[in-house]
Amino acid sequence: MSGLADRHLLGIEPLERDEITLILDTAESMLEIGRRAIKKVPTLRGRTVINLFYEASTRTRSSFEIAEKRLSADLLNLAISTSSVSKGESLLDTVRNLEALEADFIVLRHQASGAARFLADRCRASIINAGDGTHEHPTQALLDAFTIRQHKGGFAGLKVAIVGDCAHSRVVRSNLWLLTRMGAEVVLSGPPTLMPVGIEAMGARVVPLLEDAIHGADVVMMLRVQRERQRTLGFPSLREYARFWCLTPERLALAAADAIIMHPGPVNRGIEIADEVADGSGSVILEQVANGVAVRMAVLYLLAGRRDAEA
Amino acid sequence: MSGLADRHLLGIEPLERDEITLILDTAESMLEIGRRAIKKVPTLRGRTVINLFYEASTRTRSSFEIAEKRLSADLLNLAISTSSVSKGESLLDTVRNLEALEADFIVLRHQASGAARFLADRCRASIINAGDGTHEHPTQALLDAFTIRQHKGGFAGLKVAIVGDCAHSRVVRSNLWLLTRMGAEVVLSGPPTLMPVGIEAMGARVVPLLEDAIHGADVVMMLRVQRERQRTLGFPSLREYARFWCLTPERLALAAADAIIMHPGPVNRGIEIADEVADGSGSVILEQVANGVAVRMAVLYLLAGRRDAEA
Amino acid sequence: MSGLADRHLLGIEPLERDEITLILDTAESMLEIGRRAIKKVPTLRGRTVINLFYEASTRTRSSFEIAEKRLSADLLNLAISTSSVSKGESLLDTVRNLEALEADFIVLRHQASGAARFLADRCRASIINAGDGTHEHPTQALLDAFTIRQHKGGFAGLKVAIVGDCAHSRVVRSNLWLLTRMGAEVVLSGPPTLMPVGIEAMGARVVPLLEDAIHGADVVMMLRVQRERQRTLGFPSLREYARFWCLTPERLALAAADAIIMHPGPVNRGIEIADEVADGSGSVILEQVANGVAVRMAVLYLLAGRRDAEA
Repeated sequence: MSGLADRHLLGIEPLERDEITLILDTAESMLEIGRRAIKKVPTLRGRTVINLFYEASTRTRSSFEIAEKRLSADLLNLAISTSSVSKGESLLDTVRNLEALEADFIVLRHQASGAARFLADRCRASIINAGDGTHEHPTQALLDAFTIRQHKGGFAGLKVAIVGDCAHSRVVRSNLWLLTRMGAEVVLSGPPTLMPVGIEAMGARVVPLLEDAIHGADVVMMLRVQRERQRTLGFPSLREYARFWCLTPERLALAAADAIIMHPGPVNRGIEIADEVADGSGSVILEQVANGVAVRMAVLYLLAGRRDAEA
Repeated sequence: MSGLADRHLLGIEPLERDEITLILDTAESMLEIGRRAIKKVPTLRGRTVINLFYEASTRTRSSFEIAEKRLSADLLNLAISTSSVSKGESLLDTVRNLEALEADFIVLRHQASGAARFLADRCRASIINAGDGTHEHPTQALLDAFTIRQHKGGFAGLKVAIVGDCAHSRVVRSNLWLLTRMGAEVVLSGPPTLMPVGIEAMGARVVPLLEDAIHGADVVMMLRVQRERQRTLGFPSLREYARFWCLTPERLALAAADAIIMHPGPVNRGIEIADEVADGSGSVILEQVANGVAVRMAVLYLLAGRRDAEA
Repeated sequence: MSGLADRHLLGIEPLERDEITLILDTAESMLEIGRRAIKKVPTLRGRTVINLFYEASTRTRSSFEIAEKRLSADLLNLAISTSSVSKGESLLDTVRNLEALEADFIVLRHQASGAARFLADRCRASIINAGDGTHEHPTQALLDAFTIRQHKGGFAGLKVAIVGDCAHSRVVRSNLWLLTRMGAEVVLSGPPTLMPVGIEAMGARVVPLLEDAIHGADVVMMLRVQRERQRTLGFPSLREYARFWCLTPERLALAAADAIIMHPGPVNRGIEIADEVADGSGSVILEQVANGVAVRMAVLYLLAGRRDAEA
């Protein structure tokens, strides 16, 4: 495998196993760059990256921004609030205008599922999906996979439990595509109101009780409760949620002895994960953050190579 | 012509024909840089540019920011809301403080006509006017001129129709100065409530009907309807506006067969321009965007040369 | 003195005299860089600096940002509003996540006194305190000291009068530590409601009348009235404040003939300083701004050296 087939990264679903492995292997070298005193390579010097965020995201945007700077790209941050969209131009007009600035990459976060694909079909710039609606968030799944591979060596035969609001989570969907394709077994659990109908068709097993889901699991991935959308949480209260779904040390004891604990962040301590678990020896939550920069550097690097090959 | 006479760019009015030509010629080489894989030159390395915007402007600010980065400048973005001005310091104090940071260039957008000139008289930094009230927006007129010259070879004898809200438009004023100075004929049209009194003194011909204005025109420039200020639009409704002033394919047929269609963006589709025209073969709207970066790079480059000569 | 003892800059209180002198000496060379045409050195190339501001601050943030860019650092600006904190993660979780991005420096402004120290005890990154509650604002005191030394040659035997809201001012506290440690005499004055109890223990003399405080002073430092917090100003009205505490030319005549006038900015003209004084020959307010960049460059430079020595 010498490169990616597509010049966009729209999701995990279109990626072959070999492409996923290539991205993870490339991220290994990128991780090494982040540990040097001089964390900078000239790979994307003179390339223009536009971070176009229609939803607020300090975390993902910061990770992309640092990845871009370590690759020496020129970057432009555009945070567009929904209110300004209502009086403004369409997504397509906005992106065509950004393309006209000779952007090489557009990192897009948008509330509409399918927004990244829609643009990719109409743009010369490479589109990197940084989260589209409830569809996909491929760089999150890639950094999760990178972290799992670091600790477990691979994916075949692993049991991965994903717990929480699976219905509204693009992270779950991208992880499901990736982990099943790489040979892991994925078990989902969470409040029945937050479990998407028909998700088994994507290769997951749905298990009603948290305890059953994490039993013997090698990886326990807890999802974030969207506290800021409390009115539509789909469960009676945070206290009630924590009672049934918080990963406590007692519950964690059901998982494999060397299980790793993951979370896309930011963690609501005491709601989806107890303090002792979040800060415990199995927690790899901060490693996920560090790996996020490396994985995003790898994606930019490989897409740049793909663009050069095309030019 | 080896350089600009002034170390500021405050408007088109003070520019000689030769200076306009010099900026457009310089922008040709800058455009070429934007088409390279590595879109970066070290011209402004170690120079400090401050983008000081008292009015929101994603479009103009992004264009300047990319121009500055492609020239390797160090830049600082300051967006100052009117609310913070009320409790804060005066424009002059703010700019003197920015100057004290050893800024070489201050790119200023301000709601008061004359703000750029006011500062230029009191500052060591070079002031670039990015739009002051209803006065001037010189880099917009320069990018428009650059686009016209690309397509028409020059200005002499051209008929340029500008249509829409001419009363509140700094774009119209800067374009009028530039186009008449370079030998083009400019015809203005728009709702009578939005036509400034005495504008003929600037060399324009005012024509009440859109159809008459664009008849035989080589260039049709449609102005943006400020939908966000609907209460003070100066016409009954957007539907009413579109009925009389929208550039439809039927109306466009009245212009020269090779007429180009321009718009400062963002376009309100179906209000000032019909979809078929905005996306049609005569539309150069996206070229204007690309040319905007090149023209702004040229302005920064020439002003830097002017500063070095003075030093 | 070849370097700093700590890899953080949390306040002036923990600094030795030698360390203060080292920072000021280093700032001299940094000031020279700011006066070159190419104001850039590669010192921090490939280092990551995160500017983490929990309070709005155009002035301090801009100064740090320019300092970081002139040292060629890669930087990330994070402005976190208090509202988002309420629904979000703790300060410690936020900073641990930033650290995981391999940040070398975190420049922190926070409303809680002690926030910088709290983090420094738990982080690998170097924390630079850019203002924590009413505790310290060390780079402001260092730039003030640098400006005083430029004009007065040193500190021993100088009389420095600080006037205004001393109770809520981290600037006063940092200046008090610094100036008394370097051998200057510090006199405080201001409305009795805004004078902290027991401040004499820090080495200051409190004088009720402005006129007495500035009598014979070599340096007069006027503090900013927080107009935006008018309800809790601690005095009847701005007019009343100005009547007793505004530095007018008449009052200034009581100071030494070569007294310099300082202010951390932005100045409320006519409230704490009269126009004639702010713009007069003794005012060094804009020099303070220029020196701020040099001092912050010096701090970053020295802390980077400290980190390298540790590595």
